[in-house]
Amino acid sequence: MKISTKKSPAVPGFTAAGIACGIKDGGQLDLALIVSDPPAKAAGVFTLNRVRSPSVVWCEKALKKTREVKAILINSGNANACVGPQGLTDCKNIAGKLAEELSVSPQEILFASTGIIGVPLPAEKITSAIGQITKKHSVKNWNKAADAILTTDLVRKTAVLEYQHSGKTIVIGGITKGSGMIHPNMATLLGFIQTNANVESDTLQKALKEATDRSFNCITVDGDMSTNDSVILLANGQAGNRLIQYGTKAYEEFVTALTELSKSLAKQIVQDGEGATKFVTVRVEGAKSRKQAHTIANSVATSSLVKTALFGEDPNWGRILAAVGYAGVPIKPDQITIALHGGVLYQNGAPTKAADQKTLQKKMHKKNILLYIDLGEGKEWAELYTCDFSYDYVRINAEYTT
Amino acid sequence: MKISTKKSPAVPGFTAAGIACGIKDGGQLDLALIVSDPPAKAAGVFTLNRVRSPSVVWCEKALKKTREVKAILINSGNANACVGPQGLTDCKNIAGKLAEELSVSPQEILFASTGIIGVPLPAEKITSAIGQITKKHSVKNWNKAADAILTTDLVRKTAVLEYQHSGKTIVIGGITKGSGMIHPNMATLLGFIQTNANVESDTLQKALKEATDRSFNCITVDGDMSTNDSVILLANGQAGNRLIQYGTKAYEEFVTALTELSKSLAKQIVQDGEGATKFVTVRVEGAKSRKQAHTIANSVATSSLVKTALFGEDPNWGRILAAVGYAGVPIKPDQITIALHGGVLYQNGAPTKAADQKTLQKKMHKKNILLYIDLGEGKEWAELYTCDFSYDYVRINAEYTT
Repeated sequence: MKISTKKSPAVPGFTAAGIACGIKDGGQLDLALIVSDPPAKAAGVFTLNRVRSPSVVWCEKALKKTREVKAILINSGNANACVGPQGLTDCKNIAGKLAEELSVSPQEILFASTGIIGVPLPAEKITSAIGQITKKHSVKNWNKAADAILTTDLVRKTAVLEYQHSGKTIVIGGITKGSGMIHPNMATLLGFIQTNANVESDTLQKALKEATDRSFNCITVDGDMSTNDSVILLANGQAGNRLIQYGTKAYEEFVTALTELSKSLAKQIVQDGEGATKFVTVRVEGAKSRKQAHTIANSVATSSLVKTALFGEDPNWGRILAAVGYAGVPIKPDQITIALHGGVLYQNGAPTKAADQKTLQKKMHKKNILLYIDLGEGKEWAELYTCDFSYDYVRINAEYTT
Repeated sequence: MKISTKKSPAVPGFTAAGIACGIKDGGQLDLALIVSDPPAKAAGVFTLNRVRSPSVVWCEKALKKTREVKAILINSGNANACVGPQGLTDCKNIAGKLAEELSVSPQEILFASTGIIGVPLPAEKITSAIGQITKKHSVKNWNKAADAILTTDLVRKTAVLEYQHSGKTIVIGGITKGSGMIHPNMATLLGFIQTNANVESDTLQKALKEATDRSFNCITVDGDMSTNDSVILLANGQAGNRLIQYGTKAYEEFVTALTELSKSLAKQIVQDGEGATKFVTVRVEGAKSRKQAHTIANSVATSSLVKTALFGEDPNWGRILAAVGYAGVPIKPDQITIALHGGVLYQNGAPTKAADQKTLQKKMHKKNILLYIDLGEGKEWAELYTCDFSYDYVRINAEYTT
């Protein structure tokens, strides 16, 4: 099973398009369409933010009613969030128009939005463009779709893999976006994953939840959770494999593949994090529970002081220990081991000789940083992915709407 | 009751000194001494970080044993944290030396440290300087002491007030430091408050806890909680007033004055927050409980996206609502009102006309920003103080140790 992040993420039976409908300035791509032929079983995970975009509400309702999806329409440049009742009316009109065009029911249409919060969606720009975009979706246009969902992202984010299952080739491909307002909880901004696998409907939802918990929910850029986070998984059964059901070996295989693909997409988000110059893996081992490990890894991965030190290549490891200490869960400081790229720098309650500033500083020059924290208490672990905190993060976010 | 932040924070019966002992480079002041004559009753609140400086551990132990304090010695430039068992040995030696010099027992000496974490304390520099500093403490040297406890702070932070109580003049004065690693929980970095009031010992601790919860615990600069946070209150009874006891009107008066003084010191920390260009008050009203109000105010006050928008004077108020939504406590989005300097910009689930970008942007130019959030659910409230997130925060923290 090899993941490609360069090849087109096309999956048999799915087509896509990306066009400019005028939400963004200067003819930038801002509307994407994914179509499944035949309609696919669908699963979704959505933001835990209690302030939710009507686009998210629309998808959740649609998935409750049908769990069968013909198409997903995605606009970038406007989040359709915090805009009053008009937001849901816009979703209905847009889904209605697309459903009419594709001759399906509106519940088979999902709609996702990303961009500025609190500005009414220019819905007429989207509805006017539906006639055009439904003529353009093809197996060749996946990269255009991947481009059309981006906002402050600098690079396109795709991944595709395939594996053999009882003589059939199962393909999983996905596109994602996200660069700021990224914080692990349920899902992070937008991800669309397609597969030709034949998967039972409830199993599909379980597989997506499991994969998301180990991938999209393990990344952070700035600790801010979006109002629009959504990851949607479509499965159209075109591989012709025997139905995959929860609890079987085939399920394990599928969820492993799906997790790997999701991790690849999630890591691409962190690598392109707003202003990021480093990709940082925070691995916590020796925990009593996965939750303890995750909470501590999260505390370190979101610390502004740790992240600015990483940007400055400043080996100020005391900040790591401070962040472990304020995570709000019990720890035994004297049993903790901290290592940077395999070199132990703190053990038995005190710095080691390797904690020497000059030795450490050399290791900080790397672009990929591995922080390892062993709590010395148990066998559970968690791994989070984060980036550093740079001048450019401040610049991008001080200037975003103006 | 008028607070002065310009006058010397001297309090009858207390003397202070500030000298350079060589921990910091270039002859900067880095050692402060506060002496009480006669010894004072003492109360303290300390960091909730589970990784704690031995200096904090020393003070907690000393206060458990005696609750009577002759002197506090404070070094800046080194936090004496995460340094192994030597850290507590250093505390014992330093307190022992100072106790000998002042002819008291070591338990009557408190010792506090602030600065870099994980570098062994140059204890001999401190012990060698004790002979010198014990000759210099006087009522005139409070500003030098206030200067000697600073690290990345740009300005000295002091406050003093007095009020009349049954014919006696009660004076409360304090000094504080803090600029980064500031996040509300129990206490924030170092604060030393002196009073000549005659206060019963348990009452003193209750008063300090109450005042701290409404002042030092309501500020945040970067969401990072220190390993060394300590606020210590000394009361030497020199005012000659009748003993103040918990639950009386005299207690209410005292705790009100102490809270106002603590708020003044706490706000000075935020105003001098690392890289800060704005002072921001986040007031949450209409909450069902004080905890709900505090949690939501905290979520907004620590959001990197809100803080960078404030720096850029970018009226991106959707980020405020997103931070309210991910605070992790139940809310009713459609009942929320958000106002900036009294102008309502979000109500009944949608933006108002005042949410117009140009109108808002003018209001953002002010140095003092008032964000008001009404949850529309109850009568409880909380007020937090924070600053914006600027290029200079990143610069200061990317370069701190190197």
